[in-house]
Amino acid sequence: MKAKTPRESLTVLTDLVLPGETNFLDNLFGGELLARMDRACSIAARRHSRRTVVTASVNHVAFSKSVPVGSVVTVEAKVSRAFKSSMEIYVDVWIEDRQSGEKTMVNEGIYTFVAVDETGKPVPVPPIEAETALEKQRFDGALRRKQLSLVLAGRMKPNEATELKALFTE
Amino acid sequence: MKAKTPRESLTVLTDLVLPGETNFLDNLFGGELLARMDRACSIAARRHSRRTVVTASVNHVAFSKSVPVGSVVTVEAKVSRAFKSSMEIYVDVWIEDRQSGEKTMVNEGIYTFVAVDETGKPVPVPPIEAETALEKQRFDGALRRKQLSLVLAGRMKPNEATELKALFTE
Amino acid sequence: MKAKTPRESLTVLTDLVLPGETNFLDNLFGGELLARMDRACSIAARRHSRRTVVTASVNHVAFSKSVPVGSVVTVEAKVSRAFKSSMEIYVDVWIEDRQSGEKTMVNEGIYTFVAVDETGKPVPVPPIEAETALEKQRFDGALRRKQLSLVLAGRMKPNEATELKALFTE
Amino acid sequence: MKAKTPRESLTVLTDLVLPGETNFLDNLFGGELLARMDRACSIAARRHSRRTVVTASVNHVAFSKSVPVGSVVTVEAKVSRAFKSSMEIYVDVWIEDRQSGEKTMVNEGIYTFVAVDETGKPVPVPPIEAETALEKQRFDGALRRKQLSLVLAGRMKPNEATELKALFTE
Amino acid sequence: MKAKTPRESLTVLTDLVLPGETNFLDNLFGGELLARMDRACSIAARRHSRRTVVTASVNHVAFSKSVPVGSVVTVEAKVSRAFKSSMEIYVDVWIEDRQSGEKTMVNEGIYTFVAVDETGKPVPVPPIEAETALEKQRFDGALRRKQLSLVLAGRMKPNEATELKALFTE
Amino acid sequence: MKAKTPRESLTVLTDLVLPGETNFLDNLFGGELLARMDRACSIAARRHSRRTVVTASVNHVAFSKSVPVGSVVTVEAKVSRAFKSSMEIYVDVWIEDRQSGEKTMVNEGIYTFVAVDETGKPVPVPPIEAETALEKQRFDGALRRKQLSLVLAGRMKPNEATELKALFTE
Repeated sequence: MKAKTPRESLTVLTDLVLPGETNFLDNLFGGELLARMDRACSIAARRHSRRTVVTASVNHVAFSKSVPVGSVVTVEAKVSRAFKSSMEIYVDVWIEDRQSGEKTMVNEGIYTFVAVDETGKPVPVPPIEAETALEKQRFDGALRRKQLSLVLAGRMKPNEATELKALFTE
Repeated sequence: MKAKTPRESLTVLTDLVLPGETNFLDNLFGGELLARMDRACSIAARRHSRRTVVTASVNHVAFSKSVPVGSVVTVEAKVSRAFKSSMEIYVDVWIEDRQSGEKTMVNEGIYTFVAVDETGKPVPVPPIEAETALEKQRFDGALRRKQLSLVLAGRMKPNEATELKALFTE
Repeated sequence: MKAKTPRESLTVLTDLVLPGETNFLDNLFGGELLARMDRACSIAARRHSRRTVVTASVNHVAFSKSVPVGSVVTVEAKVSRAFKSSMEIYVDVWIEDRQSGEKTMVNEGIYTFVAVDETGKPVPVPPIEAETALEKQRFDGALRRKQLSLVLAGRMKPNEATELKALFTE
Repeated sequence: MKAKTPRESLTVLTDLVLPGETNFLDNLFGGELLARMDRACSIAARRHSRRTVVTASVNHVAFSKSVPVGSVVTVEAKVSRAFKSSMEIYVDVWIEDRQSGEKTMVNEGIYTFVAVDETGKPVPVPPIEAETALEKQRFDGALRRKQLSLVLAGRMKPNEATELKALFTE
Repeated sequence: MKAKTPRESLTVLTDLVLPGETNFLDNLFGGELLARMDRACSIAARRHSRRTVVTASVNHVAFSKSVPVGSVVTVEAKVSRAFKSSMEIYVDVWIEDRQSGEKTMVNEGIYTFVAVDETGKPVPVPPIEAETALEKQRFDGALRRKQLSLVLAGRMKPNEATELKALFTE
Repeated sequence: MKAKTPRESLTVLTDLVLPGETNFLDNLFGGELLARMDRACSIAARRHSRRTVVTASVNHVAFSKSVPVGSVVTVEAKVSRAFKSSMEIYVDVWIEDRQSGEKTMVNEGIYTFVAVDETGKPVPVPPIEAETALEKQRFDGALRRKQLSLVLAGRMKPNEATELKALFTE
């Protein structure tokens, strides 16, 4: 399979924060943002694989800033690395100040999706060829995160996670 | 502050999977499940802290089985460990077979919430006193996961994460 | 068919009141609560019968206290009595004070569901064996309520409703 | 206060049944229909009282026929009788055959609403002057239903419910 | 095919404006109102044609007044003219003052729907026979609007739009 | 006020078509698409004006192709021309074939928004400086469409609509 760049799967979901999606501090509800991020990631995974895709795991999502009602929220997702039939997707979330237009990053997440056929069986996906410095850095970290995910799920022993181990023993 | 048990924050959210919440394989959409889990975790965090709480991070959610339309889904959340003003919440998701009533675990997640006052400033929360064997195991792992989260966010150096390091160097 | 206890069908749906579900006094909209109660009752009826179930009637729902936005609402449903293919379900609704954790009952309802096969035809369900004093009291009242429902629907004459009649003539 | 006719509060809510609102037999979910009926009743109560209104109770809703996806559903609500600050509202639900246009009644419900001021305190509402035979019949039955509701809620003794008692003792 | 009157397709959708449907001035969101109008128009088109119908175009919708949260909104749709398989539908939107009950028109729209068979192929619909003065005026303007729509879509040359041309050259 | 380019207000909203948003041919409901387009246009208008904006009118939306469930839909909105305080926004809607990735245009719309202050009073917005050939063509046509809108609303006489008149008399 011919490699694809992260840029080819770039997915942008710009939308408003409506009053019905907020919590009791008038900020966007965490769960609603997780759902939007999941939808953007699933489109990126589909654009990369051209297959049906399903969420396999949410590896990490950090909510660094709250998102007030009335904000314009931009969710940007790109495949950062592809394994046999799974894909790691990085998703960045921005809001912009209404008056100045200045952008602030509020949230960053890492999701894993798997490409499947009509019966739900995993199918192979194209490899990723990172282009920018940030894409390369995320590509390099992906194997480490995959090992971490397997260790946390009890499906790999810590001392077999060579990439991850190196991080702590160097 | 007096310690509380995980049982005191136990939150059960049993609900149906409606046709409008499914993807193209007629299974519950990943994002919708993430949102339900977030709501259950936020109630558990609130029951533990008796304060307003906000999502700080989703540390890990693994989707091990798909959830078909028409399923009865049970989401169970309990605070597994409390730090100064943050709480780690474990959330388990089950479906039950309509005819036999047999339960199957489909999903497991770890969320972190922070207790805040009216201005959004973090406030202290009671410590956790684990009771069951599983609760103790989750309590013990929580510090390691907290360090992991800080390392992934670039806010702690790998060699300072002593708990985590031990996992790979022993 | 072997009898089942009400406890075996107990269904707990704990969820938040979000701003999009409120009326103009900032309380949970009556209709939204009716829908949540209906979903919890349908799960209880399904757990009792292990069949597909459909709403037959709402016999009585009293809104005794309003439910403010931001509340944690607990909906608890249990089958109170089973007839040939219909089930009466009692549903109790609680909110808890955020600071003290004290629970207040806000709403109580009685729904009737019917178990059906794939073609929508009614099928038999197991009888109920009440355990607690409250369950026994609700079991005893169910026949009276069933007669009442038939009288109100014009499908039974008042003087044939022996159970109900006794209430007023003793 | 000057009396009003039921016709003056007539509220018609015609809408489609969308795929996201259906259960597993592809029929409109009971809870969703209860919510639509509640909204129509609240508008009728408001048109009669010209005040803010809140749901006090659902006295009886019978689901006589299922409502398939794609149906056009017409919900018609009218105040049937007014007491001091409460109003009984009758709500009839129809579907129409797409090809013949023939109407079928699928559902009938009785709701009670209370008119309140800005602080949630009950305020008086105008009396009802029934016009048609059906309106008069519903008006006459309303006192009996009110007593029934009080008896069921344990707020009136059966032998004090004179209207209701007469029904069974004649 | 026998002609039908606009009155035969009259569709009334009365509903509340809930807090979750409002923008940041606490008024009903434009897009939500467009969706309600589309649903009412599709029912009117279906009542006229007794077929499945799909939105072909929105020809003009003017938002003359904002609709505050808590309003009772009445959407009234009627087929104004039928062509071979397409129908022009006029939709008027009213709100009423809660205290005085006075009605104010807030919005007016013109939609075009097409009747289709099960495969999505257009099918013929009955002609319209306008009754009232307003219905006749709308009927007369419909051909002009149809030409306008074709000109705007680049499917008719301006000088072939004879009806429309007359408007500007007289 | 300094002119801005259409590109500066470009807003991209990529999202899935979920089963709950479809009609009875399993295609995206017209009204739901109108609402998404309205949200994208409102963000574009806000990016251009840096003010609160409200929908003034929908001038034309043509549904040329249906959008099947499971599609990835891309809504792209850009301000095409600015008047004193109103902005015309062009919105193009695309779907892409899952397997080939090929894009097909399904829908095109023209909306008008007005920039307002906190009291809802119109405020001035920057002029537009079109860059590409398509942007220039849309800019040129905007005055004609504005006159058309005023004529249709009965707020301008046809013979005063000089731009529009020229179209038919040349």
